[in-house]
Amino acid sequence: MRVMGVDPGLTRCGVGVVDGAPGTPLRLVRVEVVRTGADEEIAARLLGIETGIAALMDELRPDAVAVERVFSQHNVRTVMGTAQAAGVAMLLAARRGLPVAMHTPSEAKAAVTGNGRADKAQVTKMVTRLLRLETAPKPADAADALALAICHVWRGGAQARLQAARSRTRGGMRP
Amino acid sequence: MRVMGVDPGLTRCGVGVVDGAPGTPLRLVRVEVVRTGADEEIAARLLGIETGIAALMDELRPDAVAVERVFSQHNVRTVMGTAQAAGVAMLLAARRGLPVAMHTPSEAKAAVTGNGRADKAQVTKMVTRLLRLETAPKPADAADALALAICHVWRGGAQARLQAARSRTRGGMRP
Repeated sequence: MRVMGVDPGLTRCGVGVVDGAPGTPLRLVRVEVVRTGADEEIAARLLGIETGIAALMDELRPDAVAVERVFSQHNVRTVMGTAQAAGVAMLLAARRGLPVAMHTPSEAKAAVTGNGRADKAQVTKMVTRLLRLETAPKPADAADALALAICHVWRGGAQARLQAARSRTRGGMRP
Repeated sequence: MRVMGVDPGLTRCGVGVVDGAPGTPLRLVRVEVVRTGADEEIAARLLGIETGIAALMDELRPDAVAVERVFSQHNVRTVMGTAQAAGVAMLLAARRGLPVAMHTPSEAKAAVTGNGRADKAQVTKMVTRLLRLETAPKPADAADALALAICHVWRGGAQARLQAARSRTRGGMRP
């Protein structure tokens, strides 16, 4: 199963794509950060995010998309933008008939480190180890997106197959 | 100037299109409510909103899009969905090179009733009067979307022209 993890954000949107299945080794396919300028208008930034993620989806053809669940624990302005970037990723997946799953940051951290409160350094270290990379993925958003994808491979495999089956029955329009 | 007002929401997304210019009578072009089911997954709902708004944009070809500015004053879950629906509308506008403006609910209310705290009945009454309609637009989301479009015609005319000019200079990719 190929999973695209998306750590949503307007300034930096992490996208990590991983191949794997429960019980088999993981393989890094791609990791990128889609960036938009803080001086741009929100509509233009969402378009930038869309263009970046769509290109990666069309090139890498993931089987499922895992998006970080957004909470409004930070300041309102940031959360809105993050929620909208997450919405763009979900919309792109739905348009391609791909199942979408949402995992919380602590689910992703717990999946790769065993600790839901692990810090960024620990997450990066484990992602680097699990994917057998020679250098750590940077910036942190990139590692977070990979952690999310790994979390989905391990946690959400069964659920994703169920959704995909459901999606095919419905004609591929819904995840 | 033809303005599309969008009152964003996942369950009911109001879309109101108005022709007008400061100092000339307003004309109703279309008012609709794009609906998605609360039992659908968020990704599918965003796709439903996109399909509905895109069809109206392509048919009615507005010169500008006015989206209600979302605040996180209500419960978090609702606000996220509303922000994402607003994001979809902005994205669709940006993709077409249309200028996007955001107005707060009180700006829209103040524009049509003179009172930023006017209730829904008062807003509906004034929208009906200003557009010289025989019957009031329903539901309230429809009237709100029209109020937003009218607000933009009156408030944002100059700003929209400026943005459109800027957008043309940049090659139509940005609002």
